[in-house]
Amino acid sequence: MRPDHAYQELIRLAREETVLASCSDLLEWDEETFMPRGGLENRAEQMALMAGILHDRGSDPRFGDLLGRVEGSDLVADPESPAAVNVRELRREYERERRLPKALVEESARVATMAAQAWVDAREARDFTPFAPWLERIMALARDEADAVGFAETRYDAMLEDYEPGMTTSRVTALLDGLKRDLVPLVAELTTPASVPAHVLRREFPIDRQKLFGEAVASTLGFDLERGRIDVAHHPFCTTLGPGDIRIAVRWHRRNFALGFFVLLHEVGHGLYDQGLDPAHYGAPMGEAPSLGLHESQSRLWENMVGRSLGFWKQFFPRLKNVFHEALHDISLDTFRQVINRVAPGANRGRADEVSYNLHIVIRTELEQAMLSGDLPVRDLPGAWNEAYRRYLGVTPKDDAEGCLQDGHWSEGMIGYFPTYALGNVYAAQLYDRAEKDLGDLEGAFAEGDFSGLLGWLRDRVHRRGQRWSAAELVERATGSPPTPGPLLASLRRRYGRAAAPAVG
Amino acid sequence: MRPDHAYQELIRLAREETVLASCSDLLEWDEETFMPRGGLENRAEQMALMAGILHDRGSDPRFGDLLGRVEGSDLVADPESPAAVNVRELRREYERERRLPKALVEESARVATMAAQAWVDAREARDFTPFAPWLERIMALARDEADAVGFAETRYDAMLEDYEPGMTTSRVTALLDGLKRDLVPLVAELTTPASVPAHVLRREFPIDRQKLFGEAVASTLGFDLERGRIDVAHHPFCTTLGPGDIRIAVRWHRRNFALGFFVLLHEVGHGLYDQGLDPAHYGAPMGEAPSLGLHESQSRLWENMVGRSLGFWKQFFPRLKNVFHEALHDISLDTFRQVINRVAPGANRGRADEVSYNLHIVIRTELEQAMLSGDLPVRDLPGAWNEAYRRYLGVTPKDDAEGCLQDGHWSEGMIGYFPTYALGNVYAAQLYDRAEKDLGDLEGAFAEGDFSGLLGWLRDRVHRRGQRWSAAELVERATGSPPTPGPLLASLRRRYGRAAAPAVG
Repeated sequence: MRPDHAYQELIRLAREETVLASCSDLLEWDEETFMPRGGLENRAEQMALMAGILHDRGSDPRFGDLLGRVEGSDLVADPESPAAVNVRELRREYERERRLPKALVEESARVATMAAQAWVDAREARDFTPFAPWLERIMALARDEADAVGFAETRYDAMLEDYEPGMTTSRVTALLDGLKRDLVPLVAELTTPASVPAHVLRREFPIDRQKLFGEAVASTLGFDLERGRIDVAHHPFCTTLGPGDIRIAVRWHRRNFALGFFVLLHEVGHGLYDQGLDPAHYGAPMGEAPSLGLHESQSRLWENMVGRSLGFWKQFFPRLKNVFHEALHDISLDTFRQVINRVAPGANRGRADEVSYNLHIVIRTELEQAMLSGDLPVRDLPGAWNEAYRRYLGVTPKDDAEGCLQDGHWSEGMIGYFPTYALGNVYAAQLYDRAEKDLGDLEGAFAEGDFSGLLGWLRDRVHRRGQRWSAAELVERATGSPPTPGPLLASLRRRYGRAAAPAVG
Repeated sequence: MRPDHAYQELIRLAREETVLASCSDLLEWDEETFMPRGGLENRAEQMALMAGILHDRGSDPRFGDLLGRVEGSDLVADPESPAAVNVRELRREYERERRLPKALVEESARVATMAAQAWVDAREARDFTPFAPWLERIMALARDEADAVGFAETRYDAMLEDYEPGMTTSRVTALLDGLKRDLVPLVAELTTPASVPAHVLRREFPIDRQKLFGEAVASTLGFDLERGRIDVAHHPFCTTLGPGDIRIAVRWHRRNFALGFFVLLHEVGHGLYDQGLDPAHYGAPMGEAPSLGLHESQSRLWENMVGRSLGFWKQFFPRLKNVFHEALHDISLDTFRQVINRVAPGANRGRADEVSYNLHIVIRTELEQAMLSGDLPVRDLPGAWNEAYRRYLGVTPKDDAEGCLQDGHWSEGMIGYFPTYALGNVYAAQLYDRAEKDLGDLEGAFAEGDFSGLLGWLRDRVHRRGQRWSAAELVERATGSPPTPGPLLASLRRRYGRAAAPAVG
């Protein structure tokens, strides 16, 4: 078979696999949004079956054969050409897939679905004990996975590779240590005085109006609701079910406007990335994000750098006040901005301010590494968790629900996922700085309701690049510097130092 | 391989195929309820891919091999044993499947998804013309399908066999002719006088309250909302995504209470059937309904025989009046009952009264037979449709949207499906008569809010029987008579003759 024919067939198969995976993604979306409780066991069967079929296809030796026919040919001579990128990344995926035994893949899918429900139940009971055997099972499956796919230094490398290709444990540790060192004192320094009236956003914000306001904002930022939806789920997420079908799920809170709204902005950031991918490359690596960390950089950038800025609220605060007149009639823009930029370390990641946020990630990363290696027996997690919170954030969770049961990621088998949140913050700060240098006064445009400059820049520098480079390399090419904690720390100092002071203009 | 081992493997594969098909059903459910418009093309790809995978599995020669090892063994000596039933029906399905070329299956799935959207567009434009090429394509695919699977007398036999196994065109024609002959004069005779104030159900009925009332009724009838859901879709349906996940979709109308409510009862009837199937046999023929006609008998029974009865409303009318006080405060139970039992022939099947309903089915069945055979060119459908409506129902649709574009079934490739609606009515009348003979005063129980006697009878005589017998045979065994139009016609005469008169007691 000629290399160009082999390449076409490869792309056809890759696309087919993506279409099939998107069926599986719909099963997950539905599980989170609408599935009745009685559907759980069958859903686990469906997920396991689809995982097995996907695995059969992804590890089919014919795939390796086709790759071999293209590799080394003229078609991939330019390493940055779409063909070369697609072949390189398909090889990487194939090598991982073919090393995974099918039984392990199916079992992981089944356990993930059942454990996710066990986690919900344990969390409701506020007791880690009944969930512990599930987490042990998940850690054992993760070890089996690492051993099957192989790793350079530590099993955690193999876990990371699935979410943040090219990233290593030692590099993540260096980045997180850099953050940790500065953040512990910085959080203390920037903690907002009690005089800032946080309670004003805990007045009554009718949910139907939050929804309408949120959709209007999402639309203004560039999220296309003809090619997507916004639903409600217990845990917020964004998923791509097709190039024209990108779905966000959020959760509104009647008496906590900021919590629902910033989660929405976060998921909109993910959605803008996926709506910005090149549809011509749908199903192939050139039409996909290179890592979850880079994906997260987009959600965090829109949530924090854009959504907490003065410019943003110069545009939206008058509309907000109009929609929620009863709740906000006596609140000034300046007060509002101080409230949404409040720094107040607490026990909950999902409600954490931007400054203390990465310490929550440090804790999870350290603990999952310790559980994976076996240094921390799973049964000892609650104690270790609480101890870490005391040490890094100075708070003590009042029970397991507020402590080690607060996130569902581990229950879904996602080990090695948490650090991508911190990487996303690091990437976001560098990208935003660079966009500001290139485009000039971003907040001035936001104040006019114009987000197209920033979105266009991100489309060009990030979204449309697909998997041409690894996330770290893309950041370096876009900003001139490899990922490093400095710009994020500087950005936090600048913005949160400023937030405490009255606004000018 | 020993027969018992072969049988276990067969059941495992059948179950796996059902689980996979339920993934495909979720894609359809989502398409009808929540999918954004931009998701359409990818959805067509997803459906085609899943159809191909299902076909590969369903036509795998290994399946035929396993069947061969069980057939003739002691395991299936008793033809009514679950094993014998499963093997018989799996053989039937396998023989159909293996005769279908994969390309035809995939193409049919793709065309169905795209044509369904083309139909929505044509209907909005109220013009059949742009939809005609799609319907031609669908008829051509149906002919290919009939030729591939084979048939005894006419291609339409092959279409029927997919929805109503064991039924033939000549038998359907005889049943429909029997109905037609009597119904044309009966509709004229029973048409409700204009003095019955139908407009009272077109007052204001807030949708959120319809939804709550509907869910409460569904629950009282026995529909388990922990193992199912009720959503909103443009076109009502019921689908089973797993033994504990049975979903209804309906459509509420702010100013037409009866339309939304009876559609709900109809879908609840389907849902009760699926919730009553034996979960131990999930995925095998013994855990499935033998035909769509029998399925429809359950929806029509709950919608009409139960839901339009005086006993039912003795229970629910006081609650209804409470919920919709403004709309109903001046309406008596007797007036309400007359209104919901109004006979008024019109152009629309979905809004048809129970007496004229089957004439809508006769028209569709005759026209689809004529298009399939080629006697009626697809482009001539609108004229033929309108002519049939004049002849049988004395009405003329004002345009194609009100005429031949009113139903989406053909756009989804469902040729041979419509007669199952009339069969359902025929079966329902016979089953309800028998249940009444066995259980005594059903309406007395309904008036007390007790539907468990009837549901238990249906569970035992219908739901739990799975595919042990064909629908016609099940009806004969349960009622003592093969399917025949007499009981339905008698039931209509009895109930609608009575409906015009004031209620007693």
